[in-house]
Amino acid sequence: MNNLIDWHLESDAVWQACIELAQRFAADRTLGQDQAKGRSLALLFFNPSLRTRTSMEIAAARLGAHSSVIVPGQGTWGFAWEDGTVMDGGEAEHIHDAAGVLSQYFDAIGVRLFASLTSREADREERHLKRFERAAQVPVVNLESAYYHPCQALADAACITERFDGNPAGKKFVLTWAYHPRALPTAVPNSALLAAARLGMDVTVAAPEGFELDPAVLDMAGSGVSVSRGMDEALDGADVVYAKSWSGSMVYHLPEAEAAARALHSDWRVTADRMRRTRDGAFMHCLPVRRGVVVDDAVLDGPQALHLRQAAYRLFAQQAILSKIWDLPL
Amino acid sequence: MNNLIDWHLESDAVWQACIELAQRFAADRTLGQDQAKGRSLALLFFNPSLRTRTSMEIAAARLGAHSSVIVPGQGTWGFAWEDGTVMDGGEAEHIHDAAGVLSQYFDAIGVRLFASLTSREADREERHLKRFERAAQVPVVNLESAYYHPCQALADAACITERFDGNPAGKKFVLTWAYHPRALPTAVPNSALLAAARLGMDVTVAAPEGFELDPAVLDMAGSGVSVSRGMDEALDGADVVYAKSWSGSMVYHLPEAEAAARALHSDWRVTADRMRRTRDGAFMHCLPVRRGVVVDDAVLDGPQALHLRQAAYRLFAQQAILSKIWDLPL
Amino acid sequence: MNNLIDWHLESDAVWQACIELAQRFAADRTLGQDQAKGRSLALLFFNPSLRTRTSMEIAAARLGAHSSVIVPGQGTWGFAWEDGTVMDGGEAEHIHDAAGVLSQYFDAIGVRLFASLTSREADREERHLKRFERAAQVPVVNLESAYYHPCQALADAACITERFDGNPAGKKFVLTWAYHPRALPTAVPNSALLAAARLGMDVTVAAPEGFELDPAVLDMAGSGVSVSRGMDEALDGADVVYAKSWSGSMVYHLPEAEAAARALHSDWRVTADRMRRTRDGAFMHCLPVRRGVVVDDAVLDGPQALHLRQAAYRLFAQQAILSKIWDLPL
Repeated sequence: MNNLIDWHLESDAVWQACIELAQRFAADRTLGQDQAKGRSLALLFFNPSLRTRTSMEIAAARLGAHSSVIVPGQGTWGFAWEDGTVMDGGEAEHIHDAAGVLSQYFDAIGVRLFASLTSREADREERHLKRFERAAQVPVVNLESAYYHPCQALADAACITERFDGNPAGKKFVLTWAYHPRALPTAVPNSALLAAARLGMDVTVAAPEGFELDPAVLDMAGSGVSVSRGMDEALDGADVVYAKSWSGSMVYHLPEAEAAARALHSDWRVTADRMRRTRDGAFMHCLPVRRGVVVDDAVLDGPQALHLRQAAYRLFAQQAILSKIWDLPL
Repeated sequence: MNNLIDWHLESDAVWQACIELAQRFAADRTLGQDQAKGRSLALLFFNPSLRTRTSMEIAAARLGAHSSVIVPGQGTWGFAWEDGTVMDGGEAEHIHDAAGVLSQYFDAIGVRLFASLTSREADREERHLKRFERAAQVPVVNLESAYYHPCQALADAACITERFDGNPAGKKFVLTWAYHPRALPTAVPNSALLAAARLGMDVTVAAPEGFELDPAVLDMAGSGVSVSRGMDEALDGADVVYAKSWSGSMVYHLPEAEAAARALHSDWRVTADRMRRTRDGAFMHCLPVRRGVVVDDAVLDGPQALHLRQAAYRLFAQQAILSKIWDLPL
Repeated sequence: MNNLIDWHLESDAVWQACIELAQRFAADRTLGQDQAKGRSLALLFFNPSLRTRTSMEIAAARLGAHSSVIVPGQGTWGFAWEDGTVMDGGEAEHIHDAAGVLSQYFDAIGVRLFASLTSREADREERHLKRFERAAQVPVVNLESAYYHPCQALADAACITERFDGNPAGKKFVLTWAYHPRALPTAVPNSALLAAARLGMDVTVAAPEGFELDPAVLDMAGSGVSVSRGMDEALDGADVVYAKSWSGSMVYHLPEAEAAARALHSDWRVTADRMRRTRDGAFMHCLPVRRGVVVDDAVLDGPQALHLRQAAYRLFAQQAILSKIWDLPL
């Protein structure tokens, strides 16, 4: 594994090996200690982060590597992105050169670059992340891009695998849309959908009309995915309830209409009543989560909640990813 | 010691052991090296910091631990604090979940949460720090809260113990109010008062009318504490002059009146003349300090100044605290 | 070497030893590993940084040292600078005390303090850096000050030495001014000029009228330096083209006139055509660089570009500097 842009670009063997590695890291916090000594990891955040940043820092530290967090514009220069730009405006440095320089210092570069939500083509093609990847001369790890969040996806897959004692295949996984006051990207639901399908789970995506995921991603997930227009029915017999808000595709051309349509669905909230429809289903969410909006306190603080274990797996998954990227002898 | 909220919640045995440990760290910078290898410390700052942050980072590093500095709102999400909130406003994450997640990654969490200065009840009860402590599943270390600053207090106590060759009991400790253009919290003077009293020192608190410390804290310090309305008299024969500005209690209900009353006392400044009243007394201040306002250059740059050694002890005290929290075999 | 303010204050022996050390670090990334274990480095940035910050963090990490990045005003207190100030304004701490405290915790302090561009005397005398140095009790390393950038200069010298197989003497080094929409300081060109002269290179400085470097610095570089008023002629037969924009001296008293004069020279851009005048000359730039303004894409992305190797040498040079400052047994 040279880069990690998304798992759909990696073989089943690599995917499976990473799930197993994540579980080994979960079981043994000294695994791999010092094996990346002398290496350095850049963590470049164009968007905010709490979990990803801190869990990546610790993942690096546990392996003995140094990490540097870089927040462009916050103590560093802003970047120009387009090829052929005459840089006579506000940006002092081109991303091509920044990536080139960081490649001289670091042994891998993690990058967070959220969706624009203004150009679906640019987002679907991962134009910014691909631009960065082209300029970098060391492995690039996607810390959530326009369309994918592979660190989250591996954590989810390994956590689900643990939950079902190694046999998630055939379990009912419901990815349910939830209301949120802001238009959010689809990277997390895209990646969660693909991960659950790859685990062989019985996948249902529930979302109101106009809030379907990109058909191109649904296609990648395969023909076994069911689609539902109601949260209640979808949750019947679920083994996993994976809640997430995301914007409807209208956001790209009619953002105000998207907001208005979204506001009609504020009842798409995971409640304790709804969780009772499941087969003692586990509640998952990538976090941060809005209490009382996406999900009720009673669910998050109740016995079906899996979101903290899921968050813990971020660390283990990222230890696995760094180990693979750096080919550590584990 | 599972948490460190304030020393008044800890036994004399723990307090004494930590003072001794801090002195051992002062004497041997390799003490405990690598004993916390593989552990991680979160440093969560809701308010600015220079000393606490850097000395905590080094304390962790000297013990072999990793630390991550987190400044909410600066590259991370803002937090909601109240229970039962419907989070449809600006905050993307509840502190309950943030603390829960950090507990998955870190082996201890240091938190700085200054006083509100708007609700005395909330400040006195440490409502915010207690809220955080309830949600955390790993040890929490108070990096200055509404009412207490135990890291500073241990540094102060160990530094004073060193100054008097291990025998601070009976020495005259004067905690003197000083003028400052802004209304400041009482965490540092509260903790300094309690520390000096616990060391068996002869304690005087000097402050203008209306600027007395909370009687509840004075009570905790015991009956031996004297109160003075004048800096000059208080300083007579002092062995330690501990200067600090703090707001009068009026700040909670009449902040403008507090500011007006405070402005009448701009002569409460520690000068070289005033230091001559002492018994070669040591000048202490937690820093940052305003020169020419709280204290004159001649004092800070003169032979009685102890503030830099006091600052150095922050590192040693915090090495001691981390060692205790993590039960390192020293 | 106790401090590193600029190389012109250091002996030829130290300068030469540091160039050689930088090349050893370039050749062996494990050189010196763990030799600075237990030490800590403060990196205090009053101005933005990407390369300097991250390469210094890694330099420290590779030697086993901890580093803390401090950005005043960003999570820390702002500082007062003048002696004898009555600090009743916005600044909460004096730089004298901040430097004193950091000296208690850290084993060296790197400081970035760009030119004011408002007082040439203050800039030329390095008034701010000298103020800091006086207050510090541990080695201070200049991370780019008003007039000098010694970390860059050592990287440049070692990179050039590598380029010419250890024999840069006599090669033609052209320091050429370039257009830039903002008035920039002269620290980098000053230091590059002095470094090239010290390597015994045949040095030409090309700049439009009014954009000459400070005569005091040209004098320090020695009588062998040629001055040119045209980029084209200067580049003829060059072995190294070192491009950089800087402000004319008018910036200090007539900043608007300086901007107007500068705008007349937007044709001072390093193009592929101009590079063909050289003797297969290497293109160097300290970065960040504005593409299409200072230099064309075809140069940066072409075979004569040396700027990424130059950037890589920042890391090796700073490993050398820390090793010298801390007297590590390499």
